[in-house]
Amino acid sequence: MSPARDPDPLDGAVIDAQLKALAAFTDVPGEMTRLTLSPAHKAAAQQVADWFRAGGLDNVHMDGTGSIVGRYRSGRNDARTLILGSHIDTVRNAGIYDGNLGVLVGLAAIAALARDGRRLPVDLELVAFADEEGVRFPSTLSSSRARAGIFDPACLDERDADGITSRAALDAFGAPVDTIPAAACDPARTLGYVEVHIEQGPVLEAREAPLGVVTGIAGSSRGRCLVHGEAGHAGTLPMSMRQDALAAAAEMVLAVERRAAREGAPDGLVATVGVLDIPGAAVNVVPGAASFSLDVRAGSDGTRAAAVADIEQEIAAIAARRGVAADLHWTHAAPAASCDADLQARLGAAIQGLGLPVTALPSGAGHDAMVFRGIAPMAMLFVRSRNGSHNPREFAAPDDIGLAARALHAFLLGLDG
Amino acid sequence: MSPARDPDPLDGAVIDAQLKALAAFTDVPGEMTRLTLSPAHKAAAQQVADWFRAGGLDNVHMDGTGSIVGRYRSGRNDARTLILGSHIDTVRNAGIYDGNLGVLVGLAAIAALARDGRRLPVDLELVAFADEEGVRFPSTLSSSRARAGIFDPACLDERDADGITSRAALDAFGAPVDTIPAAACDPARTLGYVEVHIEQGPVLEAREAPLGVVTGIAGSSRGRCLVHGEAGHAGTLPMSMRQDALAAAAEMVLAVERRAAREGAPDGLVATVGVLDIPGAAVNVVPGAASFSLDVRAGSDGTRAAAVADIEQEIAAIAARRGVAADLHWTHAAPAASCDADLQARLGAAIQGLGLPVTALPSGAGHDAMVFRGIAPMAMLFVRSRNGSHNPREFAAPDDIGLAARALHAFLLGLDG
Repeated sequence: MSPARDPDPLDGAVIDAQLKALAAFTDVPGEMTRLTLSPAHKAAAQQVADWFRAGGLDNVHMDGTGSIVGRYRSGRNDARTLILGSHIDTVRNAGIYDGNLGVLVGLAAIAALARDGRRLPVDLELVAFADEEGVRFPSTLSSSRARAGIFDPACLDERDADGITSRAALDAFGAPVDTIPAAACDPARTLGYVEVHIEQGPVLEAREAPLGVVTGIAGSSRGRCLVHGEAGHAGTLPMSMRQDALAAAAEMVLAVERRAAREGAPDGLVATVGVLDIPGAAVNVVPGAASFSLDVRAGSDGTRAAAVADIEQEIAAIAARRGVAADLHWTHAAPAASCDADLQARLGAAIQGLGLPVTALPSGAGHDAMVFRGIAPMAMLFVRSRNGSHNPREFAAPDDIGLAARALHAFLLGLDG
Repeated sequence: MSPARDPDPLDGAVIDAQLKALAAFTDVPGEMTRLTLSPAHKAAAQQVADWFRAGGLDNVHMDGTGSIVGRYRSGRNDARTLILGSHIDTVRNAGIYDGNLGVLVGLAAIAALARDGRRLPVDLELVAFADEEGVRFPSTLSSSRARAGIFDPACLDERDADGITSRAALDAFGAPVDTIPAAACDPARTLGYVEVHIEQGPVLEAREAPLGVVTGIAGSSRGRCLVHGEAGHAGTLPMSMRQDALAAAAEMVLAVERRAAREGAPDGLVATVGVLDIPGAAVNVVPGAASFSLDVRAGSDGTRAAAVADIEQEIAAIAARRGVAADLHWTHAAPAASCDADLQARLGAAIQGLGLPVTALPSGAGHDAMVFRGIAPMAMLFVRSRNGSHNPREFAAPDDIGLAARALHAFLLGLDG
């Protein structure tokens, strides 16, 4: 044993220290706020590019959307490419793990290959995406969309709250906007896309499993329901003569919850009423109107569609029974993105190889990975996390981060091109 | 038949025309807004005083709270007094019937007595109260409190939104503030207090009854419940692991409604959740907290107390079952004021004498009459109304107003001192 040995790139403590060093790049001192294309983002991107080079990647460059990209080449000319990636932009007052962890775990796995002089039968591309969170500009996932070849040029003209266009922000960032089309992967030569990310939910923690294999990224439907009853005096309107919009909405909220909880939530089905408003509400007025939001997600579009249909039917039935009107409008729908079965099996085998249980779970949150739906096989490795995400209390343990790096390293070694 | 005959004071069309003439006294042209002690109120009070004199009342004067008071004397020196009254202040953008109708129906009944030269074995006092609605100053019912002998002098120092004290407003109005103590009725010499008022609820309309006898004015309890659950990501938090504060609140809202509707709402029991808030609500966040208001009313304090106790128990049970905390605080409680049985029977007999059905019903709203609880027997005659109250659409039909005047007239003729 040599006391002067270099630190092991797969050591969770090493990656954790690097995460904390990266967290110093913030636009708001004292918190982790790194909106896309901000000065802190630019400094973080330069640091990441340096680390990419030090880790053994070549052709390290910034693409047209501000992402940092590097390549770990196979020994073959005809090799296909596996893309590894996640993002280094954050929300306001974020945690330090969301996005950043996946980039640094990917780098750790490649650095371990480089340290050992291992070449794979496939090329690896590692990407630190620039715009995933969608906080600064209306667009979201625009960097991974560019790589998937589905970038929408219209988003270059979108403006942030200060009126700065995305195009101007990219120019100032140093991103070569005119190379965006060239960033698109060639699906025929792309083996797939794999992303490591904190779970952002409590499932792995509850199952005491450090790592999980994502089965798919949920599709989602969002809507709004307006309930119209009849306002009345809380003292003079008898119970039997009321058309109480809030009581009707309350019954609908419970119907939404009950439908999603039914049968143990197949395919990760969840349904949420997050907003409920009573216009002109007063303590002594029977509510004449109420509105509430709906958010329905599932790993399978069929499961989601069935839940949406049942919720529509149940809301209509409650409205009819109570003599109120209910106008339900769906404002947004996104299909589910299934993870590739072969990649899932390979990630599971790598986890098993570490002596860990394999937990398969859906992702209810959106990720860069979802844009590869229909373009390239896609898979995700989840790392156990505490306290959700998008807040300073989000946490992944260094040991778990190390296990993720070792699992990804083993997965890469198992690739056969 | 003489074509030049004076109009019948008991004719509903006559009273209706007088109501519309009184409605011209408004502080906001185009709507009925006559806040207490305003310029429009002063002009209306002068008009009412003139009408009182023309109707045969004597000793017409303004009391220390701005009410207009007149007396219709019996032939006896030892006669007790029956007080008739309602209020001529209004809320903002009010209807024209609330309050005003009771004053003018009382005047009509007395004017009919005077026209016919009928003297009763009791003195009658008619009051047009100045402050019932409690919109301008924090106090409410201060004028009828003065007459009941329970005026709180502290309210003279209360200020309106412009910083004007109640005392200064009374001075400007011309009310002799130092006579307030002298306005107190002598309970030993007071036969009772009777008020005619629009129902403000839908019961008489639903029963197709023009008039109703009030059994009592509901007592009320008001409170606020804070539900603390655990916020979470609407996509990543499985249904089985949620502590959704809104879903818990929704179940509580329905429990409140169910408890009040049980057994057909005895003693006019009603319970209302009028306000519900979700702090930091977002479409994609499982609500971590929610708060809602409670308003429970019943004609019997025992019925209300039992409902309050059951609601407390049910809310606690729902919270425990869902793993959330529920903090319920009652912020206000007022006892019920029962109407006098003998006065109720006499009002019922007068209604029956007109060939009308007698509908007994509680008042869920507060009225000047309630301040006489424990001081003098009190009763109320309700007139069928449409479209609730406190809005320009409130409506009482001239025919129903005429029936109310004839019923009150018959009731007065039946008094035996």
